[in-house]
Amino acid sequence: MTEQLPTSSDDVRSNAPLKYAKTVTFDGPIVLEQGGEFSSIDVVYETYGTLNPQRDNAIMICHALTGDSHVAAHDENDDAGWWEIMVGPDKPIDTNKYFIICSNVLGSCRGTTGPGSINPATGQPYGKDFPFITIKDMVDVQSRVLDHLGINKLFAVVGASLGGHQALCWATEYPERVGAIASIATGPTLTSQALAFDVVGRNAITSDPHFHGGQYYDKETKPNTGLAIARMLGHITYLSRESMREKFDENRLEPREVDTEFEKYFSISSYLAYQGDKFVERFDANSYVVISLAMDHFNLGNTHDQLADSLGKSDCRWLIMSFSSDWLFPPFQAKGMRNALISRGKYVSYCNIQSECGHDAFLLPNEFESYGGIVRRFLDTTTVDATFADVDESKLPVDVRSIFNHERLDYDQICNLIEKNSSVLDLGCGQGGLLLRLARQCEASRLVGVELDEANLQKTISLGFDVIQSDLEKGVPMFGDQEFDYVVLSQTLQSVISTEQLIEQMVRIGKKCIVSFPNFAYKDLRNELYHEGVSPGTEHGQLSFNWFDTPNRRFLSIKDWENFCDRKGVKILDAVCLQSETGERVYDDPNLNADLAIYVISK
Amino acid sequence: MTEQLPTSSDDVRSNAPLKYAKTVTFDGPIVLEQGGEFSSIDVVYETYGTLNPQRDNAIMICHALTGDSHVAAHDENDDAGWWEIMVGPDKPIDTNKYFIICSNVLGSCRGTTGPGSINPATGQPYGKDFPFITIKDMVDVQSRVLDHLGINKLFAVVGASLGGHQALCWATEYPERVGAIASIATGPTLTSQALAFDVVGRNAITSDPHFHGGQYYDKETKPNTGLAIARMLGHITYLSRESMREKFDENRLEPREVDTEFEKYFSISSYLAYQGDKFVERFDANSYVVISLAMDHFNLGNTHDQLADSLGKSDCRWLIMSFSSDWLFPPFQAKGMRNALISRGKYVSYCNIQSECGHDAFLLPNEFESYGGIVRRFLDTTTVDATFADVDESKLPVDVRSIFNHERLDYDQICNLIEKNSSVLDLGCGQGGLLLRLARQCEASRLVGVELDEANLQKTISLGFDVIQSDLEKGVPMFGDQEFDYVVLSQTLQSVISTEQLIEQMVRIGKKCIVSFPNFAYKDLRNELYHEGVSPGTEHGQLSFNWFDTPNRRFLSIKDWENFCDRKGVKILDAVCLQSETGERVYDDPNLNADLAIYVISK
Repeated sequence: MTEQLPTSSDDVRSNAPLKYAKTVTFDGPIVLEQGGEFSSIDVVYETYGTLNPQRDNAIMICHALTGDSHVAAHDENDDAGWWEIMVGPDKPIDTNKYFIICSNVLGSCRGTTGPGSINPATGQPYGKDFPFITIKDMVDVQSRVLDHLGINKLFAVVGASLGGHQALCWATEYPERVGAIASIATGPTLTSQALAFDVVGRNAITSDPHFHGGQYYDKETKPNTGLAIARMLGHITYLSRESMREKFDENRLEPREVDTEFEKYFSISSYLAYQGDKFVERFDANSYVVISLAMDHFNLGNTHDQLADSLGKSDCRWLIMSFSSDWLFPPFQAKGMRNALISRGKYVSYCNIQSECGHDAFLLPNEFESYGGIVRRFLDTTTVDATFADVDESKLPVDVRSIFNHERLDYDQICNLIEKNSSVLDLGCGQGGLLLRLARQCEASRLVGVELDEANLQKTISLGFDVIQSDLEKGVPMFGDQEFDYVVLSQTLQSVISTEQLIEQMVRIGKKCIVSFPNFAYKDLRNELYHEGVSPGTEHGQLSFNWFDTPNRRFLSIKDWENFCDRKGVKILDAVCLQSETGERVYDDPNLNADLAIYVISK
Repeated sequence: MTEQLPTSSDDVRSNAPLKYAKTVTFDGPIVLEQGGEFSSIDVVYETYGTLNPQRDNAIMICHALTGDSHVAAHDENDDAGWWEIMVGPDKPIDTNKYFIICSNVLGSCRGTTGPGSINPATGQPYGKDFPFITIKDMVDVQSRVLDHLGINKLFAVVGASLGGHQALCWATEYPERVGAIASIATGPTLTSQALAFDVVGRNAITSDPHFHGGQYYDKETKPNTGLAIARMLGHITYLSRESMREKFDENRLEPREVDTEFEKYFSISSYLAYQGDKFVERFDANSYVVISLAMDHFNLGNTHDQLADSLGKSDCRWLIMSFSSDWLFPPFQAKGMRNALISRGKYVSYCNIQSECGHDAFLLPNEFESYGGIVRRFLDTTTVDATFADVDESKLPVDVRSIFNHERLDYDQICNLIEKNSSVLDLGCGQGGLLLRLARQCEASRLVGVELDEANLQKTISLGFDVIQSDLEKGVPMFGDQEFDYVVLSQTLQSVISTEQLIEQMVRIGKKCIVSFPNFAYKDLRNELYHEGVSPGTEHGQLSFNWFDTPNRRFLSIKDWENFCDRKGVKILDAVCLQSETGERVYDDPNLNADLAIYVISK
């Protein structure tokens, strides 16, 4: 196992012998989605960990375009796998807990039947006679592996990139066989830009004079030039501009010494030439064409409605994860899937991991703490029925957005205002403190959080809640009209700039909405401005922020709020005003005597 | 001339005959930067408009990778040129005012000597014997054209993409021959990502078996497959993801009927195949290799200091323009050049045009109003000595950022506080109203504005000022320590969130700084909160904004400000406090009686 940390996907894939792989042969006819068929196929797979007696702890890991069944080392003497970082004892996908299956995809050149395999009908490699295959065909084959292993339902399917396509296909084609999906660095289809790169790469392969229409297995020279060019191009799309800058900008004109026919003027030239030359040693041109075509034809829809129809077929818990600098599967695609799933009331968490590593980020150590941690917590909380039963609430930190440094009095009030068995959306849920109380005190039927901060998100997921990463300033259009019994905005109104649109969206989404905010017309604050001539919130005041660094952007009073609701046609259903030092409810002139207000409103 | 609007660069380039082109032959030896030489070269160029008797109205337009001398039609019967939109009578580069020169670059296949030209030494095309050329070699040849035309100094050089590289090279290699530079959609060097695409494209060309090391001119079959693949790849980098989505997403699986050997499964496939096939009819593979290598070797530096050293050699007025969705020359490169120029005290305006058209935006009509308008105003104000003499100040709108709806009283005060012949940086300069007064009343020696809004920027440039587009929230690190006599922040402090860093940077950059802001402890505002219990600035108050839609983010009093300066170790040199309704200066308890404060501060 290599000591050096990988810096791109090419560093984690090899053509090492698959010492622990098993092969299963399925006899046909095996009919394909587009009409072709095989009389029989071989499938190579590896497993890790132990299948429990209930046979319900199996996780299928789906590999990417040029990956294989060797996801991780089986022991100390084994070669490292392509997702060594994620899979193993005590790792995020924990082989002490789960039974892991990784099978090589149909069409590959790493064991499972592919264009280079012998066609039983001719005794020669399939070559150009290899039928057109789809992502669904790949997943159908994996489901045969499941049958073979005697597993009825997968605990989860985890996949990134092409593996993500397979995971999405599992969820939509075999909803009854999947408990959870972790969809990473993928999309419901390729963008036209990503598709265009594949097209150019395939054109390089198929127009290589040594390709011979795919019938090159008996030739001395293989279409290696075309395949290397396709790989160079693909490789560029796996890296981000930032990561390429870091790798190559400084020593731009210092190419490595490599033995290649390709251009070597620049350090990036020799790097790409090396990657291209190395790739042809471990991969087959026909497999590249066949698998990339399957990927390019995968399409769950371009519009929200199409996506909702496709993903609406699923019946599992979802984790959707993207990487900010991934331009092969840009985050807007993952957000589209998130929105589609939300619109069909599915259980979904979403996070866009901040990373400069591009598409390859899911294989690299750089953001591993974040994405590995989220996958681990997602899987672990999917196992537990009442996940939040064990959490020690007193250890939850006070939410950072609170302008108060003491206990969140408003949480108790909000819990009192919410009826049992309701569905609740918590906007700006922080680390999940309110969600936890709602789960315990109100026995809420459905709880969803929205939060921007990655670390907070991870903590809320670890409590077992579904959390959507989103910026409230950009609104929450992904939620449907009257989708929740309650929408809560606790101590966040004053720090949001897009006040009007947010309140408008809240009353659209929630049958009732609860808004808590500090009252800036509270007598102490009035006195401060009136008598001392300083902005409320200076060091002299009871609030800990200065005018120049307060996280608050809006300064409103209870009276301002009521005027606002009146003006916007928003109904006030209930109001609780508190004096937070005593914790007492204020009935006498709350705009003067209360410093904390909790309002229940509706359309 | 075609009626249809172009949607990519391929729509504006043709291999039409160059009816109005002139050819000039330069006899050598013509020695190249990297040591090669020509015994003689031909240069093809076109001119538009009339050279004035002073011979000082000539603009050199530099073309992009596959362009030519035909920048625009010469008359109604002529074919459209590649920059028809920009060049002509009354167009942004106005042939009624300027004498335009566009010469085909060295190495091209559109008239000027290139690899397909006859090598006098052999009587055969140069092919692989064509020497290695650089951007400087291209510009050296253009300077010979200038000599030939009897022009000593260019009024301006305008160039985009590879043409931008030439413009940058003009500025740094011939500073005495250039009055102004408009550098559009270009960078000081290629990013490693952009370079990587060129490398892959060239590898496709040179590994085409019909390339024969460049000696293919006498062969029946040309390396058209490799060239077409390089072009497809290049074409993807000219479009943005958004523009590709718009073009291809909806009808993904509906390829056009084109006669091609390339893949046609998807609409994007047939489009790229068509563009590739069409391109080989008008361009030569060796020219593509030679010119793209020149581009790839162009490097004014990767670090700020290197860039400052390179660009510091220039002695002209600068316009730097980028496009937000250009990922071939991403805006950060243009910003790097902007910063380098500023650090050397050069006259520079910068704008990043918001566009979804990618690199091709500079050729397309979509954002033409904006980028065409800015180029027009930049050129036109470079001609006039005292540009702001003619402007009717009363027609300048009140700055949108002002919280006051009446006259900008603070402008007069600021002008009074600034000594004559000073250099002034105006942060958040709006449409240039204060800059204009400073120019007239204070006869400022150097005036620079910083503004975020594109439309405001255009108006300020049209007054003849240098304006830098930048977001004050992200700071102004591009300006040097104590670079200006004064830095002004007028009525903007209260709408900036990053208050501390902005003030810190101001006192770093300015020997003195002037800050004007509204006093939120003004008595009327105090009364409003104290007696009415509403946030100052509601409809009942003298300010026109509501708490929920005010552009203000910070609410400070004069006392708050003085405490802040004290705390930060900022010296208060002078202060003027006003009651804005009467316009009178307030000496008695300004924190109570003044609603507008103007402070002079320093480190």
